[in-house]
Amino acid sequence: MRVLFRRGLLLAGLGFFTLSAQAQTAASLKSDSLNLRKIYNEALLNGQSYENLRYLTGTIGGRLSGSPQAEQAVQWSKTTMEKLGLDRVYLQEVMVPHWVRGAKEKAEIKGDKGKGIDMSVCALGGSVGTNGKLKAQVVEVKSWAELAALPDDKVRGKFVFFNRPMNPTYIETGQAYGEAGDQRRNGAIEAAKRGAVGALVRSLTLAHDDFPHTGTMRYDEKVSKIPAAALSTNGADQLSQLLKASPGLTFELEMACETLPEVKSYNVVGEIKGSKYPNEVIVVGGHLDSWDLAQGAHDDGTGCVQSIEALRLLKASGLKPERTVRAVMFMNEENGVRGGNKYAELAKAAGEKHLAAIESDGGGFTPRGFNIEAPAATVKKVQQWQPLFRPYGSTEFKAGHSGTDIEPLKDQTKALIGYDCDDQRYFDIHHTAADTFDKVNRRELELGGASMASLIYLLSKYGL
Amino acid sequence: MRVLFRRGLLLAGLGFFTLSAQAQTAASLKSDSLNLRKIYNEALLNGQSYENLRYLTGTIGGRLSGSPQAEQAVQWSKTTMEKLGLDRVYLQEVMVPHWVRGAKEKAEIKGDKGKGIDMSVCALGGSVGTNGKLKAQVVEVKSWAELAALPDDKVRGKFVFFNRPMNPTYIETGQAYGEAGDQRRNGAIEAAKRGAVGALVRSLTLAHDDFPHTGTMRYDEKVSKIPAAALSTNGADQLSQLLKASPGLTFELEMACETLPEVKSYNVVGEIKGSKYPNEVIVVGGHLDSWDLAQGAHDDGTGCVQSIEALRLLKASGLKPERTVRAVMFMNEENGVRGGNKYAELAKAAGEKHLAAIESDGGGFTPRGFNIEAPAATVKKVQQWQPLFRPYGSTEFKAGHSGTDIEPLKDQTKALIGYDCDDQRYFDIHHTAADTFDKVNRRELELGGASMASLIYLLSKYGL
Repeated sequence: MRVLFRRGLLLAGLGFFTLSAQAQTAASLKSDSLNLRKIYNEALLNGQSYENLRYLTGTIGGRLSGSPQAEQAVQWSKTTMEKLGLDRVYLQEVMVPHWVRGAKEKAEIKGDKGKGIDMSVCALGGSVGTNGKLKAQVVEVKSWAELAALPDDKVRGKFVFFNRPMNPTYIETGQAYGEAGDQRRNGAIEAAKRGAVGALVRSLTLAHDDFPHTGTMRYDEKVSKIPAAALSTNGADQLSQLLKASPGLTFELEMACETLPEVKSYNVVGEIKGSKYPNEVIVVGGHLDSWDLAQGAHDDGTGCVQSIEALRLLKASGLKPERTVRAVMFMNEENGVRGGNKYAELAKAAGEKHLAAIESDGGGFTPRGFNIEAPAATVKKVQQWQPLFRPYGSTEFKAGHSGTDIEPLKDQTKALIGYDCDDQRYFDIHHTAADTFDKVNRRELELGGASMASLIYLLSKYGL
Repeated sequence: MRVLFRRGLLLAGLGFFTLSAQAQTAASLKSDSLNLRKIYNEALLNGQSYENLRYLTGTIGGRLSGSPQAEQAVQWSKTTMEKLGLDRVYLQEVMVPHWVRGAKEKAEIKGDKGKGIDMSVCALGGSVGTNGKLKAQVVEVKSWAELAALPDDKVRGKFVFFNRPMNPTYIETGQAYGEAGDQRRNGAIEAAKRGAVGALVRSLTLAHDDFPHTGTMRYDEKVSKIPAAALSTNGADQLSQLLKASPGLTFELEMACETLPEVKSYNVVGEIKGSKYPNEVIVVGGHLDSWDLAQGAHDDGTGCVQSIEALRLLKASGLKPERTVRAVMFMNEENGVRGGNKYAELAKAAGEKHLAAIESDGGGFTPRGFNIEAPAATVKKVQQWQPLFRPYGSTEFKAGHSGTDIEPLKDQTKALIGYDCDDQRYFDIHHTAADTFDKVNRRELELGGASMASLIYLLSKYGL
């Protein structure tokens, strides 16, 4: 491309603003528009989220619950928010699971003639180890019905290989992820029920590459616990191909993962007291823990630094929120949601009144808008503000799922809101060794933080 | 993120469809919706654009006008479209400039004490060489006014260093690019008018990194031609810093670039004859040439493979266009627009009737919509189709600039349309060594091709 000329967009779209019953005056509309511009300017000119993310991901690194890195991330979040001069920064104690991957993680396919092929694998989070090498034949299935239809002797003593791909025709990749995720979550239980010795699961991604994707899985206390590992999509395709030629091949899996006793950890909370309604709380958050394979950049380092940045943007833009605003770094979203549950429990016990909770946990990509989880009338109220976001490309204000950490607040708040951004690349790197700082674009991250701060500004001014 | 549940979107949004005077019936609306779904499914399940791009960028590589690679790209495009079984594939001869970078491209800063610092530089496209080492002092300016205000003796015999950054507060990066681009285009002329010996230009990007960005520049035949080079943004910041401490430092530049005699080249055209109105033509295109520093992936390999794919999608989905559809690979957008001009000239000479022309030349990122360059009533007609694109996230149907290659068709067509996609990352890699295949996401590319094919389908069915 050589030269692009586009139109200034600052006040575009405002002509379409539909006035509500509680009509906002033209003057306040204009001041809202200018205040949003202040927030975005501050984010794009003096943003701190990118350098914060560099530290959180690069210096601290992957932050699985119970790990020393998770503890470092707690201390770092606390210090970082304290430096912003918020009204209050504090920790909420919470016990979290402590699963460790261990050093060994290895797999090999032995063909009929004993020829070995290394496979890149990773244990699913929460899996038991293999206690040395676990060798068995493999049976491939693409659906629960296929597994159910197999005679017992085809499953017993084998690995069940769950190889249903994510559906590439869904436009929102999260939908394809949600649909295919049952294999990862329940594969070990259903395989064990039929006497299998292990579960092998195709990675949850639409990319064709060599990264195995970890993620949480579960056991049923009434069913024996068998090891569960993810194969990369290329690896899964290769295994499927090899099985066609050599149905009797042997798969050797070795994993040293284990679950240790629970550990004390924390949510980290930073707060700006509301100037007019200090007892009404707006939460904005991400989760501080991440999987251990990489740096947890898009999942969910970006959500954390954006939430901290949202508070900084309000302060730096001189916009004192009328309601109390809290940035919450939730602990243990990935394998327990203990932090999200603890926050809601403490808020209830303290009789706190929450107006809304916003979560950013879909990556730090270019903003598209917000998913609003609330009664229809409340969704409509939030949608009224959409025209103010048009100059910034955040146009999708839709009813939809919000976020895992704020979900426990459902009965204690008027609206749960998920930050919605471009999701085409998210599952390429999600829960893999490739979820690193260099995958995050500075501007995309900053625009996201600004859109969250802008929504908080409006929520704190107008309520719901 | 753990699990996302989103709503099915196939028919969402259709409730908002505003019926025009020439109201389309509910039945045809439904069939349009289903046909778009066919196109998107074909793109996401059986897409060929990504593998085509791999060949064009990886095997052929950078394709500057007049280079052997540009010639290979012409032959490859022709063969690739012939394999699709189109009704007609042909070449349009066009003479193009032939500028070559040459082997040497080197710069060094010598401080007051003779200490040398290497700078990464690249010649701007079209620049003359330095004929050995060009050594001179440097004067930095951030605006034309600053240059005008300098006394002659502060400029004569020196390099003028144009160091105005792109404005990060514009939300659309193309706007910031357009505004800062005058330094690159006119810097050498304005510096030479004041007696300078060379122009150094800050790279046109919002990123802070070490890549110099090339791009076209011009000379005025009445003003002496001086060499012009780009510095990376980090390099420009460093030079600016050094100049503060040592205003008398010497800059040494060595570039072996030169302009050779013009070369014969081609536009490549593939055509599906319209079933009902064969004499009305819809063009979809990108430019086949690219800068030489890298593979020309996002600029504009993606536009080319998306245009070819658009025709393939129509055929594979069994949608015979009622009007004639042409995929055009334009030659020489980057440094001459000879291909775009030639296409328009030949169309005019042949008395062809063009309905619309679509260009993809803003990268292969996630689609946002289309920029429509047409009279207001025509813009409105195109905007009527927006609801059909909502399930696919292509929602921005705005009046705006279309594309450089189709611009010459302005007076011969009812609408010029620019494919609009997320542009936050585009200028990070634009015209640099980093514009490579691995920067392109398969799904983002495929969604773009599908959105172009969908618009062509509607244009070919309803006209304008």
